[in-house]
Amino acid sequence: MSKSSEYFSSVEPIKFEGPDTDKTLAYRYYDKDRVVMGKTMEEFLRPSVCYWHTFCWNGFDVFGAGTFDRPWQKLSGQEMAEAKLDAAFDFFARLGLPFFAFHDVDVMAPASNMKEHTENFARILDPMEQKMEETGVKLLWGTANMFSDPRYMGGASTNPDPEVFACAAVQVRQAMDATKRLNGANYVFWGGREGYDTLLNTDLKREMDQLGRMLSMAVDYKHKIGLEGPLLIEPKPHEPTKHQYDRDVATVYGFLERYGLTNDVKVNIETNHATLAGLSMDHEVAAAYALGIFGSIDANRGDPQNGWDTDQFWNDPLDITRTMIHLLRNGGFTTGGFNFDAKVRRQSIDAEDIYHGHVGGMDMLAKGLLSAAALIEHGEADKFLSDRYAGWDGDLGKFIMAEGTTLDAVADRALSDGVDPKPRSGRQEHLENLVNRFL
Amino acid sequence: MSKSSEYFSSVEPIKFEGPDTDKTLAYRYYDKDRVVMGKTMEEFLRPSVCYWHTFCWNGFDVFGAGTFDRPWQKLSGQEMAEAKLDAAFDFFARLGLPFFAFHDVDVMAPASNMKEHTENFARILDPMEQKMEETGVKLLWGTANMFSDPRYMGGASTNPDPEVFACAAVQVRQAMDATKRLNGANYVFWGGREGYDTLLNTDLKREMDQLGRMLSMAVDYKHKIGLEGPLLIEPKPHEPTKHQYDRDVATVYGFLERYGLTNDVKVNIETNHATLAGLSMDHEVAAAYALGIFGSIDANRGDPQNGWDTDQFWNDPLDITRTMIHLLRNGGFTTGGFNFDAKVRRQSIDAEDIYHGHVGGMDMLAKGLLSAAALIEHGEADKFLSDRYAGWDGDLGKFIMAEGTTLDAVADRALSDGVDPKPRSGRQEHLENLVNRFL
Amino acid sequence: MSKSSEYFSSVEPIKFEGPDTDKTLAYRYYDKDRVVMGKTMEEFLRPSVCYWHTFCWNGFDVFGAGTFDRPWQKLSGQEMAEAKLDAAFDFFARLGLPFFAFHDVDVMAPASNMKEHTENFARILDPMEQKMEETGVKLLWGTANMFSDPRYMGGASTNPDPEVFACAAVQVRQAMDATKRLNGANYVFWGGREGYDTLLNTDLKREMDQLGRMLSMAVDYKHKIGLEGPLLIEPKPHEPTKHQYDRDVATVYGFLERYGLTNDVKVNIETNHATLAGLSMDHEVAAAYALGIFGSIDANRGDPQNGWDTDQFWNDPLDITRTMIHLLRNGGFTTGGFNFDAKVRRQSIDAEDIYHGHVGGMDMLAKGLLSAAALIEHGEADKFLSDRYAGWDGDLGKFIMAEGTTLDAVADRALSDGVDPKPRSGRQEHLENLVNRFL
Amino acid sequence: MSKSSEYFSSVEPIKFEGPDTDKTLAYRYYDKDRVVMGKTMEEFLRPSVCYWHTFCWNGFDVFGAGTFDRPWQKLSGQEMAEAKLDAAFDFFARLGLPFFAFHDVDVMAPASNMKEHTENFARILDPMEQKMEETGVKLLWGTANMFSDPRYMGGASTNPDPEVFACAAVQVRQAMDATKRLNGANYVFWGGREGYDTLLNTDLKREMDQLGRMLSMAVDYKHKIGLEGPLLIEPKPHEPTKHQYDRDVATVYGFLERYGLTNDVKVNIETNHATLAGLSMDHEVAAAYALGIFGSIDANRGDPQNGWDTDQFWNDPLDITRTMIHLLRNGGFTTGGFNFDAKVRRQSIDAEDIYHGHVGGMDMLAKGLLSAAALIEHGEADKFLSDRYAGWDGDLGKFIMAEGTTLDAVADRALSDGVDPKPRSGRQEHLENLVNRFL
Repeated sequence: MSKSSEYFSSVEPIKFEGPDTDKTLAYRYYDKDRVVMGKTMEEFLRPSVCYWHTFCWNGFDVFGAGTFDRPWQKLSGQEMAEAKLDAAFDFFARLGLPFFAFHDVDVMAPASNMKEHTENFARILDPMEQKMEETGVKLLWGTANMFSDPRYMGGASTNPDPEVFACAAVQVRQAMDATKRLNGANYVFWGGREGYDTLLNTDLKREMDQLGRMLSMAVDYKHKIGLEGPLLIEPKPHEPTKHQYDRDVATVYGFLERYGLTNDVKVNIETNHATLAGLSMDHEVAAAYALGIFGSIDANRGDPQNGWDTDQFWNDPLDITRTMIHLLRNGGFTTGGFNFDAKVRRQSIDAEDIYHGHVGGMDMLAKGLLSAAALIEHGEADKFLSDRYAGWDGDLGKFIMAEGTTLDAVADRALSDGVDPKPRSGRQEHLENLVNRFL
Repeated sequence: MSKSSEYFSSVEPIKFEGPDTDKTLAYRYYDKDRVVMGKTMEEFLRPSVCYWHTFCWNGFDVFGAGTFDRPWQKLSGQEMAEAKLDAAFDFFARLGLPFFAFHDVDVMAPASNMKEHTENFARILDPMEQKMEETGVKLLWGTANMFSDPRYMGGASTNPDPEVFACAAVQVRQAMDATKRLNGANYVFWGGREGYDTLLNTDLKREMDQLGRMLSMAVDYKHKIGLEGPLLIEPKPHEPTKHQYDRDVATVYGFLERYGLTNDVKVNIETNHATLAGLSMDHEVAAAYALGIFGSIDANRGDPQNGWDTDQFWNDPLDITRTMIHLLRNGGFTTGGFNFDAKVRRQSIDAEDIYHGHVGGMDMLAKGLLSAAALIEHGEADKFLSDRYAGWDGDLGKFIMAEGTTLDAVADRALSDGVDPKPRSGRQEHLENLVNRFL
Repeated sequence: MSKSSEYFSSVEPIKFEGPDTDKTLAYRYYDKDRVVMGKTMEEFLRPSVCYWHTFCWNGFDVFGAGTFDRPWQKLSGQEMAEAKLDAAFDFFARLGLPFFAFHDVDVMAPASNMKEHTENFARILDPMEQKMEETGVKLLWGTANMFSDPRYMGGASTNPDPEVFACAAVQVRQAMDATKRLNGANYVFWGGREGYDTLLNTDLKREMDQLGRMLSMAVDYKHKIGLEGPLLIEPKPHEPTKHQYDRDVATVYGFLERYGLTNDVKVNIETNHATLAGLSMDHEVAAAYALGIFGSIDANRGDPQNGWDTDQFWNDPLDITRTMIHLLRNGGFTTGGFNFDAKVRRQSIDAEDIYHGHVGGMDMLAKGLLSAAALIEHGEADKFLSDRYAGWDGDLGKFIMAEGTTLDAVADRALSDGVDPKPRSGRQEHLENLVNRFL
Repeated sequence: MSKSSEYFSSVEPIKFEGPDTDKTLAYRYYDKDRVVMGKTMEEFLRPSVCYWHTFCWNGFDVFGAGTFDRPWQKLSGQEMAEAKLDAAFDFFARLGLPFFAFHDVDVMAPASNMKEHTENFARILDPMEQKMEETGVKLLWGTANMFSDPRYMGGASTNPDPEVFACAAVQVRQAMDATKRLNGANYVFWGGREGYDTLLNTDLKREMDQLGRMLSMAVDYKHKIGLEGPLLIEPKPHEPTKHQYDRDVATVYGFLERYGLTNDVKVNIETNHATLAGLSMDHEVAAAYALGIFGSIDANRGDPQNGWDTDQFWNDPLDITRTMIHLLRNGGFTTGGFNFDAKVRRQSIDAEDIYHGHVGGMDMLAKGLLSAAALIEHGEADKFLSDRYAGWDGDLGKFIMAEGTTLDAVADRALSDGVDPKPRSGRQEHLENLVNRFL
């Protein structure tokens, strides 16, 4: 047995032990079979561990070299890829979570051209499939990394050079094929460099059309190969680019409408991306449901005082609970799940730290679910909301929304009735207290 | 002659005197009849003075009382409204700018209910029409203020109470009628409170549908009364609300697509709103052109270190020039124009300060236009751009964009051709230097 | 009995009923006599209600008129001031909190010049003293409002006009006298307009010296009249000014050092000001303790997505707990306390909403105190911290910090010892989980 | 001749050709011998090229691999270091700028322990000294990189492990020695990781004291070896850490006061760091002069919409001019200069792009200097400023600032004189227009 496969073995498989346990590495709230509002926690939360942060990153940042000492990172080629696979699935299994997610280049031996890329990626699929069978860990989603290779410095689909688009097509096709083969529940697009660094060298309209073209082709291909889950676009406002086209949920919605893609493409919302865009996570989730494009969640958080993607584990109970409210009110995920797109800090150099990150993150999702469910079952918050809009289900509300009603008709009625609306409190403080009561 | 009508008379009508004049209050660059790339400056810039900041605001802020000493602000009722009108048109005429813009409540005697509102607003239209005739100043756009009255504290169209929507309908109808009567070139919606303070008391989907309903009704009404210009939505991300639905250009585009309104509704882009949304002004203008919804501009700026709407006069030559490039490349305004939605600082208490603000702002628009035109006429920047995307007009580019081409076909071609894209510099520094050369 | 004095009477005095009560307006966690780490909750938290937000503000904002219907706000002059006083102390008493805080102009009849100011302020002190005696409510701090009157538009102490400084001196003297008379525990300076709107009209050095002068004079006056508590500067980075001199704790520290004031002047840290400055609240509190200038806290919060002072009730349990850790580790307040510098939202128009705000805010402080105490009593977090720095208490650490040790000596020792530091994990994820365990 | 030494040879040495030249790579404004307000441009601006961005960075970012194809980056060890040196000094000479700046690790062969570090750094000093002699290029400042090596992941001087402090001492001593030997005009400290990622594992007071200790030792060492220029601290608010102790100019001032270092330590202000801290560059420069700690400038800019250090070439004429005003009013640099701490974008992959960046950056500094000098020589802006504060040179102003004057005395005089300050306009719009007139 290689050292990589033993890297995570110092910690016993993580178990639910309840809030009062003294044990550090145990689930206090995540009891996977506990039923909350009709679903087990596992069914509702559909947690997933990501490949890239934990198994590919070595702790480097722009200001300094890697700090981690992962055994597989000292190997190369296919040997590295397989050692990494061993470590990854050992960790997934010890966490006891049902899903994982990956980019093509995360799992394969590095390649120096497109042909090698297709060969190296193909070579890891058998061992990966076998690991999935052995451990029972399933694929939440696959994706192609179209931002790390220097060829993508000016974008993938949105590159000024159509040859780069063609390279991207090779990767997307193969990653969609792999996702289909591995029974992935969704397929994701994050357009890390689908944007610009300066408008001075950018043709905005062309690039948007190119991106629309790629998505349309991918939708057709999805139907062709029978990939069942949706394609998911992951919004982000910027970084590494100055401006990324898929800025936020509302922007993606407009893009999907423009290219006729709303039936087949949804969003994968990341907490840290939402806050970088100047939006709260609960807003993005609520907006995606309202617009009919909710798909999945990348669970993490940024630092409220820092302006880049820190991808920390999401562990703010209030923020999580506020988001869970919208999931519960809208029936939760269908194909999506909570993917831990989160990494330990650069100073957290031990295997144990990776456990702390995931166990704490998992527990806070579970606790947030319980809090939100308690609020909803208590009923007052939801009742306040329906009472507040009751007028729209009444006579005047229906009249306004009725198809033939004109502006003239509404204005005339207002004047003839001498309408004088009675102010009613929005009760924000009360509602905030109600949420806090159930944390 | 009342004191109000003399308030601006200490300054002679502003004239173009060229860059070398010693005079403080003269146009150095704005030579209205000078032809730039085929249009006079006046035709291209279509400058407009706003009513609210200069004639209605008394210098108060959240932390302190008004500091200005405007004579008309000591009057009340219709007398106040007419004195204000005198002062406003005297100022417009002395500036020599062709347009103005107003909200209903800016120009009328205050009203305490809807009936009074309609009467008071109606009463000022005759005198206003007469002033317009006398001075030749035209209306760039009219709008209804649906955010200052306490009845709108929870939104106008998006209010939980349909009676409030009905009040808004009264105002919109009358303001559209007035805009039609005064030959206004556009009609604007800024949804100051069309948003929320907390999601906990908000039904996002209902409120979006209500807003869609109002816009749809207004579009129908526009056609009914023969108002020729477009309706314009003015995006803003927040303030006074925590979140405003018409957040930015891309969000408004999605909204218009959702409710089938892209033909009749465009955007009125405000610089300070763009930057509050985390976007640059040239991006918002370029995006609006790319999406086909460019309408008009509210020219101002925020403070780069402050997070609220400061509405300062736009006087950054680089920022203005970058925006003008997109206007020139896309043919400029049709019905829109540059409206000075800008106010003097609270410490700038003299009539003279109002001149400084407008004259400086006007000159910087004119200078930015000259700079952008020089860049475009020089040609290198535009040539770089078309060269950069030339591949998309070539064989592979056309193949990718052709209707029947599949992902398979593109991927197969990439692999069989052994595509290996050659990296090419984006030349950002060179292009930035080019822009600076023409400032 | 006037209507003002009955405004808050629909709600019974708030009592502690424990976390499981069904009652909305009861304390779930704030049990004032409960002992936590050696002090009662009341002694530790020293909660205070502020006068300005609740009793002076009518719900107006920059975009709209007041929405509240407070009976005393319909009165004027001394009658208004006394009706407001009735309402305020009735509310204080019903909340059962020990302290309040006020600005001179909050409590008095409005004045139109300095002489009137001194008379009107003097006139309210007898009734106020009587109310304090009747209710037992004490004064946490007094202050003078030197930002709302138009005379202060360009600053108070930092005004370019020394006459304005002189007016400020009148107010400061009288407000310090009043604070002394009412046994106030501290005296506060918030320099709302002690900053600038543009550097172009500002002499930074002069204005800093003027501010230093005022503070030095106030320190001398404090000693003269025997006011025992410290003077407190309240940092804020901007708003209403573009830049406020007392930007944050570290900036105030430098200012106090510059003018020799660190013995007599401390800081009053406001949560929302900290976050506007790009700093976390726990940082500001920790920094103030580390620098020896911790004084008091204005408890509130901003909106994480909005860039102005929203002064919402502080109700984020994680953020509060992180701050309480530093209070507990450093022994808590001496003269300071938690002042609710927080206001209900503009849509929260009922008396009941004011209760919700304060009761929820009070409970979250109490809960945060319990959480932080549990973490500290558990011990692991503090032990980790002392272990982490243990090397500095060892041989090498002491050598480095010893007075005569030179750079040469340290470098030589490092080279001769072949120093090769062993990397140790920072355990951030573990520590964050630990905090969450006790929420 | 190696390929590295030819890398920049396709471009002829850059010459001043005036604003009307058609040549892309020529100075339009930077005419080094032109006298502006008594100094040549070269003497006033003291421009410097940095080593790290251009010669060490390969174009990688957190999301992707290096994109540049620099020949020396394919070499290793001392050979790499010398090839890089050849390329660097060839570039410096072709630009015709007088200074450069470097970190120890920028110029040397990589080392794996402290002993090797001292040897490898020592080995490059002879060739570097020779290059300096050959080209006449001088050293603006040297510094030690104490943030890239993994040993510094938890800080250098502020590390919880004193052994890491000791390693830092080795580097600082040698880098100061080298700076002395190479006649460097200043020595810089940027505390890249002198801060924290979470307060939960941080002892703020200890770490501040450790940092104070290092600076004190370095000051003593400076005197010992006779290094004449000042030590310079470079403020930055965060990145890579969540919070960096040397946050901004005011914070550094407080730190220097605390440890008695204001005589020997000044600040090196970076534009992009200032804006990340929520401050304008002209503010930071003006504040440093007012506090007596102005030292040098790292000239660059961030992206106004992005929240990380983008280190772009500073090319905003308005922003530069506003900063130059403060330099000119305060006599400019003594030992400091304008160091181009700026890098080309990751897509700007050609040698030519590096020229574009520096030539454009240099020209905008020169143009900004001309604009600011014209404004000052015009006189109106400075006269407005001195008039505005004239009252402080008058009777009342002097009375207030006089040593014995008490708060009582000022307040009494205000009341007895019936002081009623006359409001005067701050004239912000006029002053902004004045600046724009001279751009």
